[in-house]
Amino acid sequence: MSVPDDVLAEAAAVDAADPLAHWRDRFVIPDPDLAYLDGNSLGMLPRDTVHRLHEVLTDEWADGLIRSWEHWLDLPRRVGDDLAPLLGATDGEVVVHDSTTINLHQLLHAAIALTPGCRDVVVDPGEFPTDRYVVAAVAEQHRLEVRTPPAGATLDDLDIDGPTVIVRSLVDYRSGRRADLSGFTARARAVGALVIWDLSHAVGAIEIDLPAADVDLAVGCTYKYLNGGPGAPGFAYVRTGLVERIEQPIRGWFGQADQFDMDAPWTPRPDIARLVVGTPGILGLVAARCGIELVAAAGMPAIAAKGASLTRFALDACDRLGLTSDTPREPGERGAHIAVRHPDAEGITRRLAAEHAVIADHRRPDIVRLGCSALTTRHSDVARAVTAIAALVD
Amino acid sequence: MSVPDDVLAEAAAVDAADPLAHWRDRFVIPDPDLAYLDGNSLGMLPRDTVHRLHEVLTDEWADGLIRSWEHWLDLPRRVGDDLAPLLGATDGEVVVHDSTTINLHQLLHAAIALTPGCRDVVVDPGEFPTDRYVVAAVAEQHRLEVRTPPAGATLDDLDIDGPTVIVRSLVDYRSGRRADLSGFTARARAVGALVIWDLSHAVGAIEIDLPAADVDLAVGCTYKYLNGGPGAPGFAYVRTGLVERIEQPIRGWFGQADQFDMDAPWTPRPDIARLVVGTPGILGLVAARCGIELVAAAGMPAIAAKGASLTRFALDACDRLGLTSDTPREPGERGAHIAVRHPDAEGITRRLAAEHAVIADHRRPDIVRLGCSALTTRHSDVARAVTAIAALVD
Repeated sequence: MSVPDDVLAEAAAVDAADPLAHWRDRFVIPDPDLAYLDGNSLGMLPRDTVHRLHEVLTDEWADGLIRSWEHWLDLPRRVGDDLAPLLGATDGEVVVHDSTTINLHQLLHAAIALTPGCRDVVVDPGEFPTDRYVVAAVAEQHRLEVRTPPAGATLDDLDIDGPTVIVRSLVDYRSGRRADLSGFTARARAVGALVIWDLSHAVGAIEIDLPAADVDLAVGCTYKYLNGGPGAPGFAYVRTGLVERIEQPIRGWFGQADQFDMDAPWTPRPDIARLVVGTPGILGLVAARCGIELVAAAGMPAIAAKGASLTRFALDACDRLGLTSDTPREPGERGAHIAVRHPDAEGITRRLAAEHAVIADHRRPDIVRLGCSALTTRHSDVARAVTAIAALVD
Repeated sequence: MSVPDDVLAEAAAVDAADPLAHWRDRFVIPDPDLAYLDGNSLGMLPRDTVHRLHEVLTDEWADGLIRSWEHWLDLPRRVGDDLAPLLGATDGEVVVHDSTTINLHQLLHAAIALTPGCRDVVVDPGEFPTDRYVVAAVAEQHRLEVRTPPAGATLDDLDIDGPTVIVRSLVDYRSGRRADLSGFTARARAVGALVIWDLSHAVGAIEIDLPAADVDLAVGCTYKYLNGGPGAPGFAYVRTGLVERIEQPIRGWFGQADQFDMDAPWTPRPDIARLVVGTPGILGLVAARCGIELVAAAGMPAIAAKGASLTRFALDACDRLGLTSDTPREPGERGAHIAVRHPDAEGITRRLAAEHAVIADHRRPDIVRLGCSALTTRHSDVARAVTAIAALVD
């Protein structure tokens, strides 16, 4: 057998022993032969979501009408409580609402106010665009400079020697490299700096324990590894004890302590729901909750282990087939996606879809990104993708 | 017959001749005997929405997966184009995204920047809470004062004699009183002031022509008279020619000119979609679009005429039954809801629901609000509500 044949056969063997394999049945699978390696951009549709949304439409919206707001009112906080264990967090530390961008915008304003003598805001120039845009906009509003590491260096090389606010992804959206959550948080805190962690490419992919890492603030999204649906709401994490000090800039009636005292000035709710802004989108929250519940039921230890297995398999195959990837080989140093680098990444990604039934993700300039969402991805999907890339490169 | 019997009989006669009566069949009606007079808080569920959401789940999310973003990307602008005619507006002047609160927050920042020498921000102390909260927060961020009319006076009495930004509802959420859209806009513009109109209680209820009234900026919501669903997204209107000058404060990757140039600094899109922030919630947008399409198909002239008929019927019945309402008697001076005032409004609203199958809305301190959403409300619903209130007051 050739190396590609070996890779495919080995994948089939690993899949046969996969303890999470049956979780794929909980999703709507459009085509069993499709290798969907973009669950890290849009997770697949859980079957439960179809039923649950239909129930919400007919029982809660159509039948309950305005009366359903009695239990919808607090949904951002309750879905946050459902999500909390995936972050090692507890009830009242997480709220799900609006977009990740809005959550980051709010927490960055709050973090600057929480950082006496804040000199600047730090972000990596390779950080996900929305994070950089938020940092630039909010820094400008506070008349602060944006500081970045010098070319070729990373945030780990940067000299943090005083009060600043740092926005950083736990898992890099391109390389898949995972930062040192507790080490970097501690290093920042030691000099009066505050880190806002962006967990978008980490939550539902790897095991996270924010309290153990002494994290103050974090945001993330629910439409990737949490399978919350297109444009599902983002979330914010604020550690216990800090919520009361969060001053957020976008004030609406859902963040108000007594929401139906129509004549009061704005007084923030005492709990994490002070971050909620206007009327939350219930359909999106319900879908997000279904995805979160599924991940929680499967369990993060098993999901993280399978993600590590899938990405190890992908990286091994890349190495054997002569493909280039700068994703770390040490499992604890990566998330659940890998980056294959090639000058014609765009053409390769297009041909993977058109000729090989492999959906990957092109990220400019030279990355083919393979996302290994554990509940829906098979080792054989990864094997087909990597062997197909190798064939296209040839 | 007694007066209540007369009122009910007259309502039945008017309903029998109602040219919009059949539109009620386009909605999921949980109980034909329920008088739902809170469609101005949460509109009923259109049947189309059930089918369309199921299609989006199965065809677009499950089958199309990440590929569906090709047509989802521009959905906020396209749903805005669908909504535009309801405001007399044209393609490119409206965008649907995030909550009404966020749209107002963005446009208020932009309006202050557009108003050279802006001295303060004006809002009525009786304005809807979220509007007041946004005004207070954004004014504080710009170090501006908030100015309100003196007690007992209205914005119409206020001396506007220089550059300021004014946030004002077209239809008051309590009394139903409609402001003079073109007159007030012109009076403000004459002295260098800018008005942001909140159309939440007006859109889908009355005929609106923003260009004819020379309106610069407006926001509104889609979950009331547009039947967009619980927490459906809000919208922003920016008149043609002004979009390029809108500087908005919440910058995410969906407002970026070249969204997938991951390394660029933030450059706003040239069109109205520069107001979009993070990844838009697709399920909410799809549901909003179904509601908007239904209203557009029924036609605003017919809807506005029926709203005027329903509210006239309600006010006449109140007068005959000795109930107090400060909603204007002149149809052009009100929206499509009325306020019945009584010291025990809360108890009355509760008993209407528990004993009379009438869902109304209590607004502190003394209002029972009756919303007359034209596509789903019958004159007999209004008649039952008013006669039941009269009986309870007795």
